[in-house]
Amino acid sequence: MQVHRLDTRDADFDARLDALLDRAPEAGAEVVRAVDQIIADVRQRGDAALVELTNRFDRRTLTSAAELSVPRETRQHAWDALDPALRDALEQAATRIRAYAEHQKLQGFEFTDGLGNRLGQQVTPLDRVGLYVPGGKAAYPSSVLMNAIPARVAGVDEIVMVVPAPGGELNPVVLAAAHLAGVDRVFTLGGAQAVAALAYGTQTIPSVDKIVGPGNAFVAAAKRAVFGKVGIDSIAGPSEIVVISDGASDPRWIAMDLFSQAEHGEDSESILISTDAAFLDRVAAAMDERVATLPRAGIVEVSIRERGALILVRDLDEACAVSNRIAPEHLELAVDAPRALLPKIRHAGAIFIGRHTPEAFGDYCAGPNHVLPTSRAARFSNPLGVYEFQKRSSLIECTPEGARPLAAIAGRIADAEGLQAHAQSARDRA
Amino acid sequence: MQVHRLDTRDADFDARLDALLDRAPEAGAEVVRAVDQIIADVRQRGDAALVELTNRFDRRTLTSAAELSVPRETRQHAWDALDPALRDALEQAATRIRAYAEHQKLQGFEFTDGLGNRLGQQVTPLDRVGLYVPGGKAAYPSSVLMNAIPARVAGVDEIVMVVPAPGGELNPVVLAAAHLAGVDRVFTLGGAQAVAALAYGTQTIPSVDKIVGPGNAFVAAAKRAVFGKVGIDSIAGPSEIVVISDGASDPRWIAMDLFSQAEHGEDSESILISTDAAFLDRVAAAMDERVATLPRAGIVEVSIRERGALILVRDLDEACAVSNRIAPEHLELAVDAPRALLPKIRHAGAIFIGRHTPEAFGDYCAGPNHVLPTSRAARFSNPLGVYEFQKRSSLIECTPEGARPLAAIAGRIADAEGLQAHAQSARDRA
Repeated sequence: MQVHRLDTRDADFDARLDALLDRAPEAGAEVVRAVDQIIADVRQRGDAALVELTNRFDRRTLTSAAELSVPRETRQHAWDALDPALRDALEQAATRIRAYAEHQKLQGFEFTDGLGNRLGQQVTPLDRVGLYVPGGKAAYPSSVLMNAIPARVAGVDEIVMVVPAPGGELNPVVLAAAHLAGVDRVFTLGGAQAVAALAYGTQTIPSVDKIVGPGNAFVAAAKRAVFGKVGIDSIAGPSEIVVISDGASDPRWIAMDLFSQAEHGEDSESILISTDAAFLDRVAAAMDERVATLPRAGIVEVSIRERGALILVRDLDEACAVSNRIAPEHLELAVDAPRALLPKIRHAGAIFIGRHTPEAFGDYCAGPNHVLPTSRAARFSNPLGVYEFQKRSSLIECTPEGARPLAAIAGRIADAEGLQAHAQSARDRA
Repeated sequence: MQVHRLDTRDADFDARLDALLDRAPEAGAEVVRAVDQIIADVRQRGDAALVELTNRFDRRTLTSAAELSVPRETRQHAWDALDPALRDALEQAATRIRAYAEHQKLQGFEFTDGLGNRLGQQVTPLDRVGLYVPGGKAAYPSSVLMNAIPARVAGVDEIVMVVPAPGGELNPVVLAAAHLAGVDRVFTLGGAQAVAALAYGTQTIPSVDKIVGPGNAFVAAAKRAVFGKVGIDSIAGPSEIVVISDGASDPRWIAMDLFSQAEHGEDSESILISTDAAFLDRVAAAMDERVATLPRAGIVEVSIRERGALILVRDLDEACAVSNRIAPEHLELAVDAPRALLPKIRHAGAIFIGRHTPEAFGDYCAGPNHVLPTSRAARFSNPLGVYEFQKRSSLIECTPEGARPLAAIAGRIADAEGLQAHAQSARDRA
């Protein structure tokens, strides 16, 4: 199969790598315009707009917004009806995701300054969050667990999930996962109209404080538009993997690891970086051999051809430097002494350490979240986590004596800024 | 002076409070369109666009982008030339901001699961951040300290500051603060063009990983547009204060505390909530008396008339509930036992505890950041802090034995999701 071959020794390496990575997700102007109209419509007409838009976009025949609600018993039944082996796997995954999330909880702090004043930070959970779950072919129960469990661990009061049901169809495993994760309310609603309803509320859909979860271009544009009115997690782009290999792994394993990203979609990015040219050839051969076994071989082939790459580097330090430039969502360190590379990795959403840690473990059950920064956002953002469902308030408590020196400092700077009420308010305590 | 008077016992209380709060900052369509064009122009023409746009919007006469740079010596000179008393105040403020910030540093963690696998989180600083500082009348040295110091404490490699110089004028105190805070590079650049340059880079301006700092409607719209390509802190709205009083504070102090928000601008929001109707009257009288002393009395009067309110409540519990609805940027607890109220405060950017802790301390020198969530964003977001300049990478390291049970779980869920490459990649390690 076709795949880009790059070598850091080549004069055009930088340009070729940049070209491969150049695909920031940007919404077209028509998408933005359509989304703005949908949001305005939902704000103005509430439930009536939701019913109309859902009937149109999801081919439903709703007569009232009440029909959007999926009752708790329906979710319970979906759970009960699940294949016991799958139920067991989901339960084990949920337990591990919860255990990891417990480690992420933010803690407040307080200390006393040299003047006797108390300073600190108070941490509180969000009241209500909205969880967007894509419908149709990309309706993944694992996403429900990954988004809902950290919110529950954070102490969020109410989790509201929306999932479109195109043509009325709903993935029962997604409903079962919502039951397992303890989602409070579920509505069969999708697209920009779902985001607008969660941000502004309608008669039927409660407004939330933050909206998390992936979606298509319309959902992404809607999240960008309502950001500020509510919090959002991030704008999700196509999935990515970088594997750094010393050439000593089974090439068949590495080929399948690359495919596990490639099968997500034709715009997924799967990159292998190795110090061993012969190993790159062996992985290429293993890809040829193994692709035929996959039901999604067609998607994989396009993805690997368009966005896949085998990169030859001089040494593992250079491998880390190239990986840092990519700032991948997922990074596998398939080398002998992976811990030695860790301090050199500056940007990566999740790091899979050693030959026995494939990225797929992280997607389902290792424990850390599978919602990770994409499109180089690992340079500045975080995996989804408990901390995304908590927020901090600064605490300041002055004693009458401790206030005096602060009054002098604040007064002086406020004078310089021409803010006399600030200065006077401070000096009132002097 | 005129101010809204509300009472929770009134039938129309909810409606009147909602009307008072209804002012989510939303950019007009023309602003968005203009900003999109500016961003496209800067991306396409780089420095040439910056020179043109800056000459046009800031009335400059630049001939090359190199003139945008403010050399290190210029900042050093600004610092040296400062009034020693102001220099001392800024130094003390910086020391306190730094000391508080040290407490906010994120820490990584690692633990071993029941199977012998290692799970954890690695924390790293951002490489390069951009700091937007408004120019002209709202050029505040305190903002430079509040934005730059946490980034420095986080370990950010390079801090790039942009500040417009309308008509070539630059506030020397702002430059001095940049010197004190250890800003690495300064450019006299503002508006959407500054945000575009920081997000995409030009020949002269380096691209950054995150852009922080307040700005006007154009800056806010530009930050929203580049979000995803780079990180942003938040979309800043008008300033807000809520004071909860039991009626036993000096009404003149409370009046001036309300004014310290009101003087920021005509759209600032200053709200006093009290259990004591007579105290509300006394504060109103004190406002009448004290406003005349202020150079910005005109702004204060409009702000208090349009967005100010004195709210009578039944008890302090109700005061907290009303405050939680407002989710204010700043909250003063001017009561006898303020600590008893803390657990009841769910949403507030910063909480000023007790009668001797005016909000103005927090603006300058208490230690906690003065960049705080506005427009009810305290429901879901954080004060600016060290954590905004750090990010997390998940860590997963399986042993060959620990991998086997995970392979079974992941394989089974991947089967259910129809992702066979995921399933096979996991099972390769079984």
